[in-house]
Amino acid sequence: MTRVINFGAGPSALPHSVLEEAAKGLLNFHGTGIGVAEISHRSKAFTGFLTNLESLIRTQLDVPATHSILFTQGGGTGQFSAVVLNILARHRLLYPDLTNAERHLDYVITGSWSEKAADEAKRLGGGTVNIAVDSRPYSKDGKSFDNIPSHDRYSFSPDPALIYYCENETVDGVQFGYEEGEQTSFPFELFPQGTLLPLVADYSSSFMSRPIPRLADHAVIYAGAQKNIGPAGLTILIVRQDCLVDVDAAAKLGAVPVPLSMSYKVLADAKSLYNTPSVLPIYIAGLVLERMKENGGMPYYEDVNRRKAEKVYAALKRGEEKGVMQSKVKEGGGRSWMNVVFDIVGGPDALSKFISGAEAKGLHELKGHRSVGGIRASLYNAITEGEVDQLVAYMDEFTNAN
Amino acid sequence: MTRVINFGAGPSALPHSVLEEAAKGLLNFHGTGIGVAEISHRSKAFTGFLTNLESLIRTQLDVPATHSILFTQGGGTGQFSAVVLNILARHRLLYPDLTNAERHLDYVITGSWSEKAADEAKRLGGGTVNIAVDSRPYSKDGKSFDNIPSHDRYSFSPDPALIYYCENETVDGVQFGYEEGEQTSFPFELFPQGTLLPLVADYSSSFMSRPIPRLADHAVIYAGAQKNIGPAGLTILIVRQDCLVDVDAAAKLGAVPVPLSMSYKVLADAKSLYNTPSVLPIYIAGLVLERMKENGGMPYYEDVNRRKAEKVYAALKRGEEKGVMQSKVKEGGGRSWMNVVFDIVGGPDALSKFISGAEAKGLHELKGHRSVGGIRASLYNAITEGEVDQLVAYMDEFTNAN
Repeated sequence: MTRVINFGAGPSALPHSVLEEAAKGLLNFHGTGIGVAEISHRSKAFTGFLTNLESLIRTQLDVPATHSILFTQGGGTGQFSAVVLNILARHRLLYPDLTNAERHLDYVITGSWSEKAADEAKRLGGGTVNIAVDSRPYSKDGKSFDNIPSHDRYSFSPDPALIYYCENETVDGVQFGYEEGEQTSFPFELFPQGTLLPLVADYSSSFMSRPIPRLADHAVIYAGAQKNIGPAGLTILIVRQDCLVDVDAAAKLGAVPVPLSMSYKVLADAKSLYNTPSVLPIYIAGLVLERMKENGGMPYYEDVNRRKAEKVYAALKRGEEKGVMQSKVKEGGGRSWMNVVFDIVGGPDALSKFISGAEAKGLHELKGHRSVGGIRASLYNAITEGEVDQLVAYMDEFTNAN
Repeated sequence: MTRVINFGAGPSALPHSVLEEAAKGLLNFHGTGIGVAEISHRSKAFTGFLTNLESLIRTQLDVPATHSILFTQGGGTGQFSAVVLNILARHRLLYPDLTNAERHLDYVITGSWSEKAADEAKRLGGGTVNIAVDSRPYSKDGKSFDNIPSHDRYSFSPDPALIYYCENETVDGVQFGYEEGEQTSFPFELFPQGTLLPLVADYSSSFMSRPIPRLADHAVIYAGAQKNIGPAGLTILIVRQDCLVDVDAAAKLGAVPVPLSMSYKVLADAKSLYNTPSVLPIYIAGLVLERMKENGGMPYYEDVNRRKAEKVYAALKRGEEKGVMQSKVKEGGGRSWMNVVFDIVGGPDALSKFISGAEAKGLHELKGHRSVGGIRASLYNAITEGEVDQLVAYMDEFTNAN
């Protein structure tokens, strides 16, 4: 069987050329005579590869010297905990005399992932969770994650220990606006410039799909690799260095103890090699990032990903005009470039018909997340514009036939 | 360049046939038209593979129905924290009224990994660490990890919350005795039979190299995959079901909060799919375990691994008799089947000569851990008896020439 087009939400498609290269590396890594899954993570061949990987991210995303780039395991779920523990440890060291009730963790809730992250902060304790905004009251039906709220709807604490948002909600297809001046962008202007903002962003499903607005203002940006840049099992962190704190000193002052493998400082001090990293996912991510650089880096992907999304949303609009399709996400900003989520009008039979018709054309993994239903087309970096054109042609064909 | 023989301590050699199969799976997994690194972890193809992986472990290790087999990320270092947090949560729920000083965590220290694990328990708090035994006072020089203490040297707490040991110390080359009645075995007889012992074992570097003695008496057995069964990035847990506890209920009673991704119950309830697992390392581990079953399972590997170790230790003894080599680990039990650690007599020049001579014969990664020095030959499952014969021939040649 030949390869199909994989619109899955993650783990998701990787470039064919990268997979062919990785298949060779499995047997022999950089001429060492040892496969990449078998080589010591402390070997020169591997540490050199890791250094280059960091540089590929730093250069393409324009990460300033104030921020360290770290590699770990455990995905977004691990970071739901780790960011709270590290940032609260930092806050404890800065303000040892505050009560937990005075340590405000401000969460921006725009989808199921940011909601889970806020739930984890509530579980761990050590601070008080404030929901700066929840987008559901502003949705079409009053209960769905289908929009990004406008800036006047946020209510942040006066001096929060943590400000948290999820840049792209993979399940719900909602993403912060990207265009200059958009009301659906993250409301950076509500915070003072040039301060060490405790701003944390989950970029798991949009990392390196386009430049990161106001990157330098972030305390922590993290991303699981398994969307745009590699296999599951690798988590990438961009951490501003004032957030690399001595968690043990903070625990002595009453902060929640931090498992050693979750300490950002431990990770940074050991250059991401405190313990054995997930060598194989790191290798494949390195191949992907090298290829991205050759393709033209962020300007190239920003252009292509914008066009890909515009084409699919345009086809969706044609489907809506004929009453065949229905976008899940409100019009007017907040629609994700990465995950296009929509319904097929006509119930389960119509949905099945769309999916089986797509599969007959080699367009796979279009079923929506089990909590949302419908269709979800994920348009990550590895999905080419030509593949999007095939999806669009099929959507139009379906619209016209129904 | 052809492949070399890789005696590295981990990440370490994998079977060539498995790597060739994995290279195909990277491009197309089980005829799905999607590579294994790209496929949804909730797809039928992958969940079926995971169920089979569990069954391959359960059958070959004879894991009873009382124990769950779980897959996670983060390696041994992650488990240093997770076992303490989960087992202390269990203890808190069983005995809510004890003080932390009354919650005894008994650590058996036989090498640098068990020492690190005990250090992590001290960091996390919630209980009091008791060193049941430290092997260093019984070493040749009074300060090295070169032996397993005899049973009369252990001093366990009357009713410990946790009893911890590391079955094989990868860095130091020390392993608990395996033969019936050996004084270097773990002193199971010091504990009452048929109770729910809070016994935890780190099997990272010996997992599935031979059967696990008294497996059913263990609360938790864990192992990083990157020695005998797969690439780094996968951690395997065998957890007795009474240790799958509600960590939030325990936290309400004063236990240390547990990051959600470290909760054994969360992992078990979701059949190891609470969040995206490290799909690619899991796939390769599955191929390795399938091959192990075809080869004859544990009886086969027990026999081969015993013979491999005996051959290398015999060559080491010949080197010692000629004054050319020096075992790091005391004779008389406690010598690892997996990691043979020794010195070349004559200082750094002699050591370099041994290593470069070995490399000229295609025998690689023999340098000892940086904290111990000397030579370390790791004889994991993927190292064949024929490859060991090549090492032994070289050791003898070196002995006779010096």
